[in-house]
Amino acid sequence: MSQVRNVKILGTGKYLPNKKVFSHELDELLGVKQGWVEQKSGVAMRSFIEDETASQMAAYAATEAINASGIHKEEIDCIVSVSGTMEQPIPCNAALVQQQLSLSESKIPCFDINSTCLSFVTGFDTISYLVNSGRYKNILLVSSEIASVGLNWKTKENAILFGDGAAAAILTKTPENEPSKILAGHMETISEGAHYTEIRGGGTKVHPNNSNADETDFLFDMHGKSIFKLSSRNIGAFMENLLAASNCTMEEIDLVVPHQASGMAMRILRKKLGIEEAKFMNIIHNHGNTIASSIPMALHEAIVQHKIQRGNKIMLLGTSAGLSIGGIVFEY
Amino acid sequence: MSQVRNVKILGTGKYLPNKKVFSHELDELLGVKQGWVEQKSGVAMRSFIEDETASQMAAYAATEAINASGIHKEEIDCIVSVSGTMEQPIPCNAALVQQQLSLSESKIPCFDINSTCLSFVTGFDTISYLVNSGRYKNILLVSSEIASVGLNWKTKENAILFGDGAAAAILTKTPENEPSKILAGHMETISEGAHYTEIRGGGTKVHPNNSNADETDFLFDMHGKSIFKLSSRNIGAFMENLLAASNCTMEEIDLVVPHQASGMAMRILRKKLGIEEAKFMNIIHNHGNTIASSIPMALHEAIVQHKIQRGNKIMLLGTSAGLSIGGIVFEY
Repeated sequence: MSQVRNVKILGTGKYLPNKKVFSHELDELLGVKQGWVEQKSGVAMRSFIEDETASQMAAYAATEAINASGIHKEEIDCIVSVSGTMEQPIPCNAALVQQQLSLSESKIPCFDINSTCLSFVTGFDTISYLVNSGRYKNILLVSSEIASVGLNWKTKENAILFGDGAAAAILTKTPENEPSKILAGHMETISEGAHYTEIRGGGTKVHPNNSNADETDFLFDMHGKSIFKLSSRNIGAFMENLLAASNCTMEEIDLVVPHQASGMAMRILRKKLGIEEAKFMNIIHNHGNTIASSIPMALHEAIVQHKIQRGNKIMLLGTSAGLSIGGIVFEY
Repeated sequence: MSQVRNVKILGTGKYLPNKKVFSHELDELLGVKQGWVEQKSGVAMRSFIEDETASQMAAYAATEAINASGIHKEEIDCIVSVSGTMEQPIPCNAALVQQQLSLSESKIPCFDINSTCLSFVTGFDTISYLVNSGRYKNILLVSSEIASVGLNWKTKENAILFGDGAAAAILTKTPENEPSKILAGHMETISEGAHYTEIRGGGTKVHPNNSNADETDFLFDMHGKSIFKLSSRNIGAFMENLLAASNCTMEEIDLVVPHQASGMAMRILRKKLGIEEAKFMNIIHNHGNTIASSIPMALHEAIVQHKIQRGNKIMLLGTSAGLSIGGIVFEY
């Protein structure tokens, strides 16, 4: 059954905090030999917030996407936050973004979609049905992530991967005679790996006020080897399913925009799927892993660097906590 | 433009923790005169967890919904958590629910949709487009909420309202010759009220490890009067929009299933909209406000109490943090 949706990415935007953290600085901070952080992570520089909030970063990225789209912000008729982290538990991120965009009285509906690092892909895939059907005309999807406050520097091989930042896209119905369309989306969750990537504390299970909790309960934890094994075992079949649903082959894809998980993870993924380096968007070197912002940020960079033309076949692809594997194939 | 979607609620389920907390007990605990808690909240009894987790409660409610639907759990092809609280910040709730349902190797895609108390309505409205288009066949929507760990008993007029629990529904494409369909959904977010209902701490803005935070930052806070004013000012126009999109009148609605916010809030809403008591589902007396579980729990009760027949016109309706007003009109 065809999944085609006549949806177009009208414009994109990104925001990075001003504060830059270089890997050679982290080498010193962590007491490891010079070059270790960059070699281990593939990241030379990442951005960390100073006083920015996630909703402020979201609004900056959204404003750039709105301008690139040539629309007025008042023409947006739905705001969906697609982030793996939240600014505060209540209300949802999207309502805070609406406020930051000075759209407090616009009545634009606001809600969040979350599948951790795949949130943008899940949001794009899900919301495109509402755009295609005419429910909404111009949807703002925005990922905004502050990883830096939740890192455990005692597990340095994890902490060195991440950066903060936001990315946004405006979706609209494709005008007649234009090629843009979604061919297919696909997601698989294998909860055997539900606890391979986690922040255990901070929700209802281990409340922040829980006196039995310690600091590390509220920090990011990841078992890289277990994730690697589980995703390696499943990525091949996943890719067959995604390509079959898209009715195309890997050779027909002009650019793969992967989750910027880590330098090594991306290298392994690329080789396993037999994708040449020039067709595999890589921005991890100067961004780090910005959680759900990674994919839309890399897509934005591909657009502004003219690596993508209208009509090109693009694949967004990633893994996330869950463990989930997800992707979407579209003609830009 | 018609929003009609041929989507049917196949079955529903709910779960309440065993531990019952009566309002006369709270009167004593809070040092107020006997009867104050029930009179103020409209709640005589609520359930609080002992050692249940949100994903366990979700799995209990989901299992009941699966059984009521006459399907096998393996026939579910998407799990969407529609809760206002999270069990842990990473991974998303839905992946934990998949695991609790012993579907770890099913590869069923899992993600969360969150608009606080309106999450079920937003999820139902959004995901129905994917069911209608054939993307998914049987979708599990599940709300599971543990309010009790986040209440501030010093703001007792708020804390006395809430209860814990879960509710679930299975959505499927309507078989031919059956009447079930969604007529319209509508949502308006007015972020002027973004900070009227909040938990300020626990996300990236005030991290659980933030040494400047105090306990109350991680607890629920609500300015009832401000919410009342803002929602009163907007509910009339909202309702006109929802009914116009549904192409029906309030008189044609057989049952309104409102968010069980508080006894008083529901009474005011009902009178303002001119809905007779018999057509306004009220379960707050023995459930309390169970956040996003409130609406699907009340819907479940309406079904099992035979207040709803197939083909009846039902309206789900509520307000949530954001401030959002949302609703959906469907033929059951």
